[in-house]
Amino acid sequence: MITRGQTRIIKIGNRKIGGGHPILVQSMTQTRTHDVPATVSQILELEKAGCEIVRVTVPDMKAAKTLGKIKAQIHIPLVADIHFQYLLALESIKQGVDKVRINPGNIGGANQVKAVVKACKEKQIPIRIGVNMGSLEKDLWAQYGKYGVARVMVESATKQIKILEKEKFYEIVVSLKGSDVNQTIKAYEAFAGRFAYPLHVGITEAGTAWSGSLKSAVGIGSILSKGIGDTIRVSIAANPVEQVRTAWEILKVLDLRQKGISIIACPTCGRTQIDLIGLAKKVERALSQVQAPLKVAVMGCVVNGPGEARFADIGLSGGKKQAAIFKKGKVVAIIEEEKKFLPVFLQEVRKVLLEKGYQEDAQRLHQVSQK
Amino acid sequence: MITRGQTRIIKIGNRKIGGGHPILVQSMTQTRTHDVPATVSQILELEKAGCEIVRVTVPDMKAAKTLGKIKAQIHIPLVADIHFQYLLALESIKQGVDKVRINPGNIGGANQVKAVVKACKEKQIPIRIGVNMGSLEKDLWAQYGKYGVARVMVESATKQIKILEKEKFYEIVVSLKGSDVNQTIKAYEAFAGRFAYPLHVGITEAGTAWSGSLKSAVGIGSILSKGIGDTIRVSIAANPVEQVRTAWEILKVLDLRQKGISIIACPTCGRTQIDLIGLAKKVERALSQVQAPLKVAVMGCVVNGPGEARFADIGLSGGKKQAAIFKKGKVVAIIEEEKKFLPVFLQEVRKVLLEKGYQEDAQRLHQVSQK
Repeated sequence: MITRGQTRIIKIGNRKIGGGHPILVQSMTQTRTHDVPATVSQILELEKAGCEIVRVTVPDMKAAKTLGKIKAQIHIPLVADIHFQYLLALESIKQGVDKVRINPGNIGGANQVKAVVKACKEKQIPIRIGVNMGSLEKDLWAQYGKYGVARVMVESATKQIKILEKEKFYEIVVSLKGSDVNQTIKAYEAFAGRFAYPLHVGITEAGTAWSGSLKSAVGIGSILSKGIGDTIRVSIAANPVEQVRTAWEILKVLDLRQKGISIIACPTCGRTQIDLIGLAKKVERALSQVQAPLKVAVMGCVVNGPGEARFADIGLSGGKKQAAIFKKGKVVAIIEEEKKFLPVFLQEVRKVLLEKGYQEDAQRLHQVSQK
Repeated sequence: MITRGQTRIIKIGNRKIGGGHPILVQSMTQTRTHDVPATVSQILELEKAGCEIVRVTVPDMKAAKTLGKIKAQIHIPLVADIHFQYLLALESIKQGVDKVRINPGNIGGANQVKAVVKACKEKQIPIRIGVNMGSLEKDLWAQYGKYGVARVMVESATKQIKILEKEKFYEIVVSLKGSDVNQTIKAYEAFAGRFAYPLHVGITEAGTAWSGSLKSAVGIGSILSKGIGDTIRVSIAANPVEQVRTAWEILKVLDLRQKGISIIACPTCGRTQIDLIGLAKKVERALSQVQAPLKVAVMGCVVNGPGEARFADIGLSGGKKQAAIFKKGKVVAIIEEEKKFLPVFLQEVRKVLLEKGYQEDAQRLHQVSQK
């Protein structure tokens, strides 16, 4: 449905982004990187939640030297996040990281850039240039500030890209993050019109779990809906597992990736005759472990219920003491007692899973139902 | 920042939408409309949360006849939601509602349309045409279905508009809601290119509180970021107060409206040396009653903290045993003990509120701090 921009394909470990490859979900650890067991444990938790690339901060040489040990214990590409110190980049690359996030414009000069580029070329790993609204170059502000911060962000990325291209290095991923959503959207759009390097999309410093998730959904969602973006990261002040869950939800909403169930539930109004909110929540909980991409509708509305159902794989439309179960718009069963709505519906979901060949999901759902 | 479409200005009670007027937040009650005390009580709760237009379902004549009593006890425009039965519309209009949501294409024929239009003209109230992906006309599916559901939605709106325009009625608001975000974005965009009638934007049947809010943020946010939309409603299976809170957050994120504080908080990483998530939550809670539009940053990061701060009215950047408070990018105080971070910061926020002339907010914050 969304026509995605044709960006350059970049390899990150055993994954690829750009050129229409699936948009990958990434996150960043919150542990001290030197604390290998804690960092590995958080990464494994992130993997389980669906994280596909993970970044760790590398503030000093001690952290850099642990990266090999971390990488040996995880299953997704590892990215080293480095600021200013090129020696940390060299050590991280030596340790086997799959990508380095470093801005070549602030690591000391041409020799330092040459050293990092040489190391990346040898190991065939890419560099992410991370432009951030909060740390733009003063000279670029002076020159382009009058055109707005989005322009300064794009010029900053351009400057960094030129430094790498001068060294004939093109394995580049770019991010242009800001906490201002409008400016960030504008920056990504302008960049995508100027370069074909793949984009890492995010809104920085988005806020706490609730407001930050919504801010990320608006910002990242708007950018993705324009066909821009090859990997995303949700930056909220919360457990990184929440960041991954939110990132997936954004991708699912735009049909860019599929993962687990999507619930369609009506907001209820004075026409609703059953405890729809309660029922929808129970359905969502019961199906939370299902991996199959299934659209499930829970409706309390005779006006839109059956019609919306044509877009769902399976749905329930509940009225007073009676509910209809429909599959792809056709009624397949009528349930007469409200207390049977949930168990009968879950049974029918299980059948759909079996029909579609998701045996494990069906089994998992069966176990949940027995509880 | 966002250039909004120049839609026709429509009066809804004492408010106006369209033509660049502020995008209004609306919601719908979940009570039985006949239950006047329950309905009024929910509307008053919604008003307090920032709801600016409220809609109630009118499923029968008994409900229609209560609308005058409801209207007398509330302070925001009241909209009657009617399906199929034009007599309910006539009664609702007689009762003094400020807008009617009804689709003229399915109320029985030309005479019924004439009667409703005549009543609306007399009382000078607008009609919202509510196109819904779940209840599109079969003939339009047959004719336009091959171009996709978004096209069918726009054709459905066009058909309904023509019926009203034939009666020289132009006080029209239109919605084109679907549970599929991509199709809904496409429908709103196509409509905005064809008509200048103001748009009521929403994603229907969005889902439960968490996933539905994110879906609404992606969908409504993407549409608004294109300059489309004059009033919004978040449809999630949750307390309508949550719908209003989410709607406001979406508008705030895009700088389309301002209300209360916006928290900028970093997502924390291995560089963070304080309990930033905990601190950000405490700050958000302490400032939750503040009405002034204030950007507040809570940062744990020496890399982006001070830079992002230039976009915040006031911020705290906390490191090991020391935090800096900055205003519009300048450090104004250093706090030496972590336990003093919160109280000293709140004191400084209070000063900013007083400087900006928000005496009541400052007073409210003072009371919270004393607790």
